Amino acid sequence: MYIDNVSSTTILEKTDPNPPKSWRQWLIGRPLQTADAPHQTISKTIGLAVFASDALSSTGYATQEIMMTLALAGAGMGAMSYVGPISIAIILLMVIVSISYQQTIHAYPGGGGAYIVARDNLGELPAQTAGAALLTDYILTVAVSISSGVAQIISAFPLLEPYKVIMAVVMVLMIMLINLRGVKESGRVFAIPTYFFVVCMFITVIVGLVRYFTGSLGTVVNPPEFDFATTMGSVTPFLLLHAFASGTSALTGIEAISNGITAFREPRSKNAGITLVWMSAILGTLFLGISFLAGTIAAVPSESETIISQLARTALGGQGLPYLLTIGATAVILLMAANTAFADFPRLGALHAGDGFLPRQLTFRGSRLVYSWGIAALGIIASLLIIVFQASVTRLIPLYAIGVFLSFTLSQTGMARRWWKSGHLKIDEKIVEPGSTIVHERHWMVKMMINGFGAVCTFIVMLVFAVTKFLDGAWIIILLVPVMVSVFFTIHHHYKSLAQKLSLENYSSRPSTVRNRVILLVSGVHRGTLNALDYARTLGPDVTALHVSVDHIEAEKVRDKWNTYGEGVRLVILDSPYRLLVEPVLGYIEKINAIRQPNEMMTIVVPQFIPSHWWENLLHNQTALILRFALLFKPNIVIVEVPYQV
Amino acid sequence: MYIDNVSSTTILEKTDPNPPKSWRQWLIGRPLQTADAPHQTISKTIGLAVFASDALSSTGYATQEIMMTLALAGAGMGAMSYVGPISIAIILLMVIVSISYQQTIHAYPGGGGAYIVARDNLGELPAQTAGAALLTDYILTVAVSISSGVAQIISAFPLLEPYKVIMAVVMVLMIMLINLRGVKESGRVFAIPTYFFVVCMFITVIVGLVRYFTGSLGTVVNPPEFDFATTMGSVTPFLLLHAFASGTSALTGIEAISNGITAFREPRSKNAGITLVWMSAILGTLFLGISFLAGTIAAVPSESETIISQLARTALGGQGLPYLLTIGATAVILLMAANTAFADFPRLGALHAGDGFLPRQLTFRGSRLVYSWGIAALGIIASLLIIVFQASVTRLIPLYAIGVFLSFTLSQTGMARRWWKSGHLKIDEKIVEPGSTIVHERHWMVKMMINGFGAVCTFIVMLVFAVTKFLDGAWIIILLVPVMVSVFFTIHHHYKSLAQKLSLENYSSRPSTVRNRVILLVSGVHRGTLNALDYARTLGPDVTALHVSVDHIEAEKVRDKWNTYGEGVRLVILDSPYRLLVEPVLGYIEKINAIRQPNEMMTIVVPQFIPSHWWENLLHNQTALILRFALLFKPNIVIVEVPYQV
Repeated sequence: MYIDNVSSTTILEKTDPNPPKSWRQWLIGRPLQTADAPHQTISKTIGLAVFASDALSSTGYATQEIMMTLALAGAGMGAMSYVGPISIAIILLMVIVSISYQQTIHAYPGGGGAYIVARDNLGELPAQTAGAALLTDYILTVAVSISSGVAQIISAFPLLEPYKVIMAVVMVLMIMLINLRGVKESGRVFAIPTYFFVVCMFITVIVGLVRYFTGSLGTVVNPPEFDFATTMGSVTPFLLLHAFASGTSALTGIEAISNGITAFREPRSKNAGITLVWMSAILGTLFLGISFLAGTIAAVPSESETIISQLARTALGGQGLPYLLTIGATAVILLMAANTAFADFPRLGALHAGDGFLPRQLTFRGSRLVYSWGIAALGIIASLLIIVFQASVTRLIPLYAIGVFLSFTLSQTGMARRWWKSGHLKIDEKIVEPGSTIVHERHWMVKMMINGFGAVCTFIVMLVFAVTKFLDGAWIIILLVPVMVSVFFTIHHHYKSLAQKLSLENYSSRPSTVRNRVILLVSGVHRGTLNALDYARTLGPDVTALHVSVDHIEAEKVRDKWNTYGEGVRLVILDSPYRLLVEPVLGYIEKINAIRQPNEMMTIVVPQFIPSHWWENLLHNQTALILRFALLFKPNIVIVEVPYQV
Repeated sequence: MYIDNVSSTTILEKTDPNPPKSWRQWLIGRPLQTADAPHQTISKTIGLAVFASDALSSTGYATQEIMMTLALAGAGMGAMSYVGPISIAIILLMVIVSISYQQTIHAYPGGGGAYIVARDNLGELPAQTAGAALLTDYILTVAVSISSGVAQIISAFPLLEPYKVIMAVVMVLMIMLINLRGVKESGRVFAIPTYFFVVCMFITVIVGLVRYFTGSLGTVVNPPEFDFATTMGSVTPFLLLHAFASGTSALTGIEAISNGITAFREPRSKNAGITLVWMSAILGTLFLGISFLAGTIAAVPSESETIISQLARTALGGQGLPYLLTIGATAVILLMAANTAFADFPRLGALHAGDGFLPRQLTFRGSRLVYSWGIAALGIIASLLIIVFQASVTRLIPLYAIGVFLSFTLSQTGMARRWWKSGHLKIDEKIVEPGSTIVHERHWMVKMMINGFGAVCTFIVMLVFAVTKFLDGAWIIILLVPVMVSVFFTIHHHYKSLAQKLSLENYSSRPSTVRNRVILLVSGVHRGTLNALDYARTLGPDVTALHVSVDHIEAEKVRDKWNTYGEGVRLVILDSPYRLLVEPVLGYIEKINAIRQPNEMMTIVVPQFIPSHWWENLLHNQTALILRFALLFKPNIVIVEVPYQV
């Protein structure tokens, strides 16, 4: 009993605590009560598995995409020596971003995604832009990760190549289902394979490095053919920037933890912050190791065998069990990465919806306390994307990462602005924002410079990405984000103007309804009609029966029977020379409507025969349905279907 | 004013005589008043065009299908000498059928299709069987005629071959549209080409015969290749019967006039009878002429050039203007033939529906006084059939004609039975049947023998057809007709039991409703809710407001606001720990329902917000819709959506 001062007119009832069972329960588990929610949080160890898999898994394709860009430009395999320096530049960028986000996590213990930070500090437009960018990016995370995961599997089992699209789609739907069951269980499901991947990759890299330094590593045996026709070019600054842009996909997912702080156990910020440090360290080490070794063994970027596969079989000595375990672990973590997006996309969607920028349904938590609508939407859109791009990582990658860097930029700018405000507060002053409260901070200037530097760096990277990859597909995102933002604002306008129109402010002198005019439609006089007549008479004293006559003989019959059974209620017969049914009724209502007094209601009662089987509806007119649509937009007219079951 | 003794409680209103204009009017013409109906009849000359085109047009393919059957069996071109004798046998059969139908037309001036004759004289099952057989056959008439028409066009313009299916479908839809405009106009549209075809064909046949007898005819130059692989066989009795069965397609359509008697001007029967004689005479002459000449010129049955085309270019001396005119006329009359089916199928459908064996919508006449539903159904099903059979006459023909002969048999049997009854009546006695009245007839025995003989002949032909063409596709119809008949009886059972349940017989002691319990669903307290509350209070004094709480803070707000604005109406708050909306409401209703007194009604009032744009509905829950479905089958519960327009 949460409402303690129940007024005399209020009754509080508890509904049955045992919800009904159904096929959905079998599929996604038993329903959880709202009161169960706070317990659904996770430890650092599981948090790393849930939120870091996206970032870590990008080692599965980031190196490959740098090499692919260099190779596609036809710069020759000599250009592969740039892979190392490019990777180092990317890791530097990662360090900058990680430090920036560390500050965000501590400033926003309630969850500090780019959306919230931008909303609190920069305003609605930047916030919606950041949100739109991130939402597109989460979708691409699913599409890219799953496609890369399938590519790993195909590297080991080339016979599966024709089935790659269908495999990818099935995997997306499987992960969707797991997420509909709820975050805690999916965290547990994913913890073991994530750590298994980390161990496998470290073994591969360490063995590779040891063999390199002992001189026994050599190069790839039977490397795949480079399967793209290219024109011969040379290494230009543009090409290097292009390759760098491809590699920045390694940074996607690094923001996941700051969005999901509330999922961590208390103390949330500290646990989340430590997890972020661990994640960055592992990611940086593995990415650098892979990039270095890939160059050393002269791996060839290809759609038929991944760089990871070439590295693993070279370092681990052929396609034995160690190779298979490593490839398996890589494939699995890529699938897990999609899970990160399934954790964050619905949460961000719910934030947008809560602020009235997306359909409110996205804020509803399903029977398992997860945002079911968001999860389902992500699964479906990502599947479509995979089908359109035929599960090709190289074709998907130009759409990826630009959104992330846009949101990085907005988020860091917002944080910088926040420190600026903080610095200008007196010791006791505070500014209360929806996301967090700003108080005076001692080192605000240093913190502002850190976030400011992060903002500048990520902004430059975003520009580089947009320019170098514009024609490859980045234009789609550059076009899509503004469209999404304007849709968000249209939705927002709708909710805002609706709330205004429904508002009870300045609502005092309400003239009450004086009269309810009831019109009963009569197609023939039978038990169903008399049942409806009974009902119509309970609605008020002013009842008129209305019959549309397309057949004079039929009309005579109705009149005669009505005289017997109509209980003295007035019957109006409308002659319909064109055999129309709905139009004469509408005309009559229009006429009555014109002479109606203010606040007089009109109720149209339609006897609705409910057959025992759905197909039997095909054997009857659906007059009530047509009337409902025709009268939907007329004020003060209500249509009542009185069901008559046989 | 057709109701002269208007009672005190009855008001008769005439609706606006000018119906609203719309896109449909542009497509199918201005609406016609019911009173216009009797004028929509046709003369003998137009009647021949409308009802005879089916029968006459079968000369376009009947000879070809006889030859095709002989050729497919691999009996060699020598077997073609049997084409003549087979054709003579078919014409004899035609004479028998025509004489039989002549008697039907005079006995049934109100329309004497197989359905009515079987219904009046044999009972419901034979009638439904005859109807089902005819309905399938009308569909095939459309498919076969249009396919053959397209084949003629392709004979002249072989380049169009790849487009034959799409051409055929477009033609079906065009004819459908013409028929939706109404029978009189379509009659006029079709009269000229029908007579043009008759003239063209007679010229071709006469020129051919003259040249044959003067010895200048010769054989086909460059005949088409026979394009089917066959094994060599010999001429067996089975083969001859098979070929005969193929040729009986010439008789399809001969029953059209007897179905459509009411479309003729008075004296109907006489006019219809004369038209039938003319039709049979023209059909017989042309068919025999074509069959004779086709053998003489050594024409080759083929999918790439029709027999008519080979005959026309041989008789008329090459592919000049006379040839093109003849082929054009043949193509056009075949398209007209489809029109016969469009005149008869909807009329037969309306008969079935009027007797309660098909959905009642088929009896409604549209704005142009035609049975729009039947016309549309025929157009769509025939189009699908053409697509499935790829517009091939040879593949469609085994499904054709068996239905016609089944209905012939039932119709003649019914007529024989009728004469038998007539013979056993006294001079002044009469039996009133729905279709016609039986009185004593002088020559009843002769008439009975004529119809009896017809019945036996058509029955044998039907058996021959079923056996020889069973594997070619006749099995589909043999399977389909019983299925259709059982569907008809299922529908009939539905209407009959419904009428019984709705009947007012034994309906006297009706306890009247004592009370209307009103439940108002409240998701939040706003102008829309208060509008609905106003309405709910007009329905009766017993109003309860119901709020489902998924959020305690929200529920508090609702309670507080209700205390201010709720006008003292009782508010029940249902706690929903699983965040469900509909289920708690259903549970509450269930509970109230259990303690309800007999004849107490329950009304659920749902405030329904009506947005200005349809897409805005996506931004709101459709609770009312879900509730409606959930409560549809519960007796004495009415759902009212009170619209609130913003």
